[in-house]
Amino acid sequence: MGVVTFTAKSHLKEGMKVESNSRNFTMVLDEPPTLGGKDEGMNPVEAVLCALGSCQCIMARAMATKMRVELIDFWVELEGDLDPEGFKGSEEVRPGFQNVRAKFHVKANASDEKIEKLIKNIERFCPVGDTLEHGVSLTAKYIIEK
Amino acid sequence: MGVVTFTAKSHLKEGMKVESNSRNFTMVLDEPPTLGGKDEGMNPVEAVLCALGSCQCIMARAMATKMRVELIDFWVELEGDLDPEGFKGSEEVRPGFQNVRAKFHVKANASDEKIEKLIKNIERFCPVGDTLEHGVSLTAKYIIEK
Repeated sequence: MGVVTFTAKSHLKEGMKVESNSRNFTMVLDEPPTLGGKDEGMNPVEAVLCALGSCQCIMARAMATKMRVELIDFWVELEGDLDPEGFKGSEEVRPGFQNVRAKFHVKANASDEKIEKLIKNIERFCPVGDTLEHGVSLTAKYIIEK
Repeated sequence: MGVVTFTAKSHLKEGMKVESNSRNFTMVLDEPPTLGGKDEGMNPVEAVLCALGSCQCIMARAMATKMRVELIDFWVELEGDLDPEGFKGSEEVRPGFQNVRAKFHVKANASDEKIEKLIKNIERFCPVGDTLEHGVSLTAKYIIEK
């Protein structure tokens, strides 16, 4: 299969609202009034947490199938700490998340040892988790539209 | 204001479908049939690209206001390269994105120099961009539900 390139497009709408598309799907994000928006959607850092939790859930399904574990229920609680001074221009704190925590809840017909192994595999092979934990080369260019 | 903790919850549904919530907002992600899902939403790595592009758009709005630039239009095209062998268990390729590229399209009543400065500020202060580019401490624990 080799390397696959995933794509998306984000378009700034009125205020802080943004409509993004990937393939035929749409995601509308915004900011709460405290951060200058009209709260018409979750905000981008909340969306990152949802993308992470979703990726971990999908890995749970895939790994459980592979390991012949009967998964009865699986959910993740996520937290991310961020200091708004960072994106407001402070040189002393980073703009992004300082820490992200995930708490997995697993219900499965399997031994505790097998469940532990399942969790380790999720942590090791989750694409979004790996991207966040180890970072990624991010390059940007721009075009001035006349 | 200090450090703010953002939260979300992701719950695995039938197949690969995941429903996530942050505050009162919902995000449904899935995988296409080629990756074992039923294609009821974009997938988690596409959602990461949308979160990144949205964050860059919101930073464009905030920075333009701060810099007194009249922003007429702003959108971002995003690409991320990923080798599926990574999440399938290969030890030779990472599971996550190998590269992410953003192309900003800016239409503004401002000099090219001021637009360049605006773009630099977006790149420097975008929370999702910073999180992806520099990585974040990611910790996990789990609870076995009986």
